[in-house]
Amino acid sequence: MFEYVVDRAVGAARAGTLSLPHGTVHTPAFMPVGTHAVVRGLSAGDVRRTGAQIILGNTYHLHLRPGESVVQAMGGLHQFTTWSGPMLTDSGGFQVFSLEGLRRIEENGVEFQSHIDGTLRTLTPERAMDIQWQLGADIAMAFDHVVPGQSSFDAAREGMERTLRWLDRCKERHEQLASQRDGGAVALGSAAQLPGRTAVRQTLWPIIQGGIHDDLRVRSLEGTLERGPWTGVAIGGLSVGEAKPVMHRVIELLTPALPVNAPRYLMGVGFPPDLLEGIARGIDLFDCVAATRNGRHGTAWLPTGRLNVRGAALKSSTAPLDPSCDCETCTTYPRGYLRHLFMVEDILGLRLISLHNIRFLVRLGEQARAHILSGTFHGWSREWLGRYYAGGD
Amino acid sequence: MFEYVVDRAVGAARAGTLSLPHGTVHTPAFMPVGTHAVVRGLSAGDVRRTGAQIILGNTYHLHLRPGESVVQAMGGLHQFTTWSGPMLTDSGGFQVFSLEGLRRIEENGVEFQSHIDGTLRTLTPERAMDIQWQLGADIAMAFDHVVPGQSSFDAAREGMERTLRWLDRCKERHEQLASQRDGGAVALGSAAQLPGRTAVRQTLWPIIQGGIHDDLRVRSLEGTLERGPWTGVAIGGLSVGEAKPVMHRVIELLTPALPVNAPRYLMGVGFPPDLLEGIARGIDLFDCVAATRNGRHGTAWLPTGRLNVRGAALKSSTAPLDPSCDCETCTTYPRGYLRHLFMVEDILGLRLISLHNIRFLVRLGEQARAHILSGTFHGWSREWLGRYYAGGD
Repeated sequence: MFEYVVDRAVGAARAGTLSLPHGTVHTPAFMPVGTHAVVRGLSAGDVRRTGAQIILGNTYHLHLRPGESVVQAMGGLHQFTTWSGPMLTDSGGFQVFSLEGLRRIEENGVEFQSHIDGTLRTLTPERAMDIQWQLGADIAMAFDHVVPGQSSFDAAREGMERTLRWLDRCKERHEQLASQRDGGAVALGSAAQLPGRTAVRQTLWPIIQGGIHDDLRVRSLEGTLERGPWTGVAIGGLSVGEAKPVMHRVIELLTPALPVNAPRYLMGVGFPPDLLEGIARGIDLFDCVAATRNGRHGTAWLPTGRLNVRGAALKSSTAPLDPSCDCETCTTYPRGYLRHLFMVEDILGLRLISLHNIRFLVRLGEQARAHILSGTFHGWSREWLGRYYAGGD
Repeated sequence: MFEYVVDRAVGAARAGTLSLPHGTVHTPAFMPVGTHAVVRGLSAGDVRRTGAQIILGNTYHLHLRPGESVVQAMGGLHQFTTWSGPMLTDSGGFQVFSLEGLRRIEENGVEFQSHIDGTLRTLTPERAMDIQWQLGADIAMAFDHVVPGQSSFDAAREGMERTLRWLDRCKERHEQLASQRDGGAVALGSAAQLPGRTAVRQTLWPIIQGGIHDDLRVRSLEGTLERGPWTGVAIGGLSVGEAKPVMHRVIELLTPALPVNAPRYLMGVGFPPDLLEGIARGIDLFDCVAATRNGRHGTAWLPTGRLNVRGAALKSSTAPLDPSCDCETCTTYPRGYLRHLFMVEDILGLRLISLHNIRFLVRLGEQARAHILSGTFHGWSREWLGRYYAGGD
């Protein structure tokens, strides 16, 4: 369980297989984001048909609605959502640090105001672990202190160092939860009682921070690995405002030093080219809301760049959205109908373009994997990126 | 083609089979409404899985967006929507007469202002036929003059008589269109050119009007039948504000005099009890937006009446929405998750409840048919209505 095997590597790019309690994930892989325990507008069946192997749930949003105790009472996220495959939950760190003016950061944790009802709430490393345990995903993420992409050295250092201190607390709490599950003696910390759900089988992944500062990134990496071993390692705090070459440099700095037999998860990334750029640098897992967000706004990803589905040129077109795509949208509906759905503002349009965009990223992962396995990744990737960028994106 | 056979009748209630170019429809049957060439929020596949046999498209809305010429250029409504089964289009009459203050009625037709862009447009019996021909549904409806449910005798008489005069013009135009398709000589009326799409196989159904006035209803019936024969007959202008017993009285007045081997279509009706009340009085086909409208607002139909899916009682419920239902929603998702989708305003919620509500009405038709075929309709219907009304609806 929680084992990761590299099936083949070509340069830094890897194809691997991750075993989780709810199934295996063949990497490289894109994880659709199920913010509110639902990939926006899509049923679990829709997501399954995109070929997605694992989905992400947002701890911050699920804590607010419906609340982890409701999810737990209903049997955990898998029962709640009817998604029976692997799941990962983030820690809520990224969300609470994004709440401008609605939060107070202290060493103990973050006090924030719910954007739903204004109530004051506190998220600490321990609470983040408890909530994720109650949600019951296969993978829980450590509670981290995220700083903006352009943060100064001092601000980035503060966040990075706190993330390491919080990692100790996350690890301790997660071990208590697992120990309780296994019937072991539990030495409790601050909380009087641990949440139930003894059936949960869950692993904890740490997050490397440090902003755009190489020194800090290396110190974060070293501090994280010292606290291991880990079944997977995430890189956080990228794609938050910094330039793409900076992101690439940071990834290149980190992946050579990361353990081979643990998946590397680049959080919150990305757009189609980001996947290929990340894979080339040794990243195995990605998540991003852009697929569904673009879908809702009528922007479809094609091998030749982006397409605005509202465009007048599509009006009477009987062609498929992307003739090279095998998704439900592209194999069923003519472009003219997809455009019409956006013109009359029917929610079916949002769903069909979101479906395509997710399939597009999932398929990009599948294609990358096939090319890694056959040793042709780098040439294929170069060609793919050339064609995509030539489309003007 | 366009043949209707009564498989069995029990009292006034009938089970029949209607043959149409795109398939057969077993009656009694509920037709989901695809206002904008889409059953709100649902894919053609979703609708197919509800067991719906035929769907309705709105000529008024499709004329405005995307326009009949676009639909025609894309191969007609079936190609456009990817719904390959039988379809019916209304004539636009009901919609233009509902546009308060935005219309001018003359003998030639109705001038109205588009609710989309304010442009002035005219719908005449001939235009309504041309547009529906271009849309290419299996069944076109005559262009009628609809009056509000509480209209005076004089107002209702004016609408009813005009509907008959317009029926002559609709019939003549529809015959010209069919004759052109069959390569016959065409004597054109007002328009210089008939629209193309020679492949269309379409029948025209008249609409009986007359408001809540029995005399007028009988005169409308007689005038309509004189102009026949018809492959189906619709009853319009009901469920537009009059009391239910009045609607029932009008139906009872008409159905005994209608031809046995033509389906009777009660337009714009209904809610679950309306289906059973209509079937008991000899109605074969129904359409109504309530299934999807209620679905969008989180109101689900159950055998025991309506349920507000937002209700706090559903919060941690792992029970299905309707344990007796076989739809995707009820066989897949727990109530607590459906409620959650509405609380976080994810469009998947609207879709899942719409799906259930449509399946609920489609299944009610299937159940009614089975009970008619086995001779047990009236007892079953009485029991069903008793249980439904006892639920407080």
